[in-house]
Amino acid sequence: MIEIDAILFDVFGTLVDWRGSLIRDFTSWSVGRGLTVDWTGLVDAWRAAYVPSMNRVRNGERAWANLDTLHRESLQDIGHQFGLPATVHESDREYLVQGWHKLDPWPNSAAGLQCLKTRYIIAPLSNGNMSLLVDLARHAGFPWDAVFSAELFRHYKPDPETYLGAAEFLGLPPERVLMAAAHNGDLRAARKFGLRTAFIARPHEYGPAQTHDLAPQADWDFVASTVENLATQLGLPA
Amino acid sequence: MIEIDAILFDVFGTLVDWRGSLIRDFTSWSVGRGLTVDWTGLVDAWRAAYVPSMNRVRNGERAWANLDTLHRESLQDIGHQFGLPATVHESDREYLVQGWHKLDPWPNSAAGLQCLKTRYIIAPLSNGNMSLLVDLARHAGFPWDAVFSAELFRHYKPDPETYLGAAEFLGLPPERVLMAAAHNGDLRAARKFGLRTAFIARPHEYGPAQTHDLAPQADWDFVASTVENLATQLGLPA
Repeated sequence: MIEIDAILFDVFGTLVDWRGSLIRDFTSWSVGRGLTVDWTGLVDAWRAAYVPSMNRVRNGERAWANLDTLHRESLQDIGHQFGLPATVHESDREYLVQGWHKLDPWPNSAAGLQCLKTRYIIAPLSNGNMSLLVDLARHAGFPWDAVFSAELFRHYKPDPETYLGAAEFLGLPPERVLMAAAHNGDLRAARKFGLRTAFIARPHEYGPAQTHDLAPQADWDFVASTVENLATQLGLPA
Repeated sequence: MIEIDAILFDVFGTLVDWRGSLIRDFTSWSVGRGLTVDWTGLVDAWRAAYVPSMNRVRNGERAWANLDTLHRESLQDIGHQFGLPATVHESDREYLVQGWHKLDPWPNSAAGLQCLKTRYIIAPLSNGNMSLLVDLARHAGFPWDAVFSAELFRHYKPDPETYLGAAEFLGLPPERVLMAAAHNGDLRAARKFGLRTAFIARPHEYGPAQTHDLAPQADWDFVASTVENLATQLGLPA
């Protein structure tokens, strides 16, 4: 019997459909702007730049920089490969960066969180910066009890400072905290540092051709199909 | 015309009635426990120890310690003066410390915040530690977008790191952030560091004999009688 007091959620991919949201948003936004951009290619390449850009912070190659800054820089690096002119207006470029602040949730995520909140403390534990997570929660209706961003710790997941820092701020030992994520790597780290683990399958996060994180790769404490399904497994009424 | 995007709230006294809540809680809890404690005297003395205990952290006399820790220590210092035996069981002492995690809100605070949230980002900016603020919000129904505690900055208000740190995490310049508090000193600091200011009068926070913070002591940007009244002044429907 696993007894927990709080649930931390990964956000990108686990709760929100970043890929579908960005492609829809940018495609519709660019109509009539004279931009001929391969938005699908750009969004996929932008996300592919995410882990390497964080790793340069994690391994000390560069000083702390939040995710908005990393997104801004990587867009500058990759945009031209997909037809985004280097001369694009600064405000247009910023529109794209801010797209990450208003991603749509997967179906029933908000309802599932509302249900979990009746019994547990719920909070994101995300590499997104604070203002991004606040904007996302307002956009998607996530009823967080607190917001834990890598920015608070100046460490990105999977560094231990993030998981252990959130548990400490909640005044809880790690084993009373459940980390929920669609990514086996996130859960591997969470378990290593003493947290409980819940895998929420999101096999289309990276589009129809996704090849990783299709299924749990370890005996995670919970394996759920949706946030609502996790709530049901925890004994909460549907 | 003042344009803001976010409102930060002081919590103790501004949103919750710490004095009335603690006296009611402890009086009722101690019935039948064989404790003859002057709870009113104890609560007032405990609160009086709050600023000096934080100032020892602020002036560098001691390392960072969160508010639960300061509360625990000051209770140890003052309890016996009001009839709390030095030998009281550790779990009873902890019950008292945890009393600060479940204070009742002043009337309509939660409804006023819900209203403000429809247009503004709302968050506490409090010297309470994170777990205290999370527990309080759950107890009182405060629908925060984020939780900013002195603990995140390892600085207590009125240090600049708190006001400026919260604005920075929100990605906002200080002048787009409104600090709301029942205490002129809190607002003086907020204004000094560039934030907008709202005074919410709480003339009974310290009981019937309160002598300070009965009225605004400067031309604060807003002077309101309640959180709902602040929402009305900001043009939101009642």
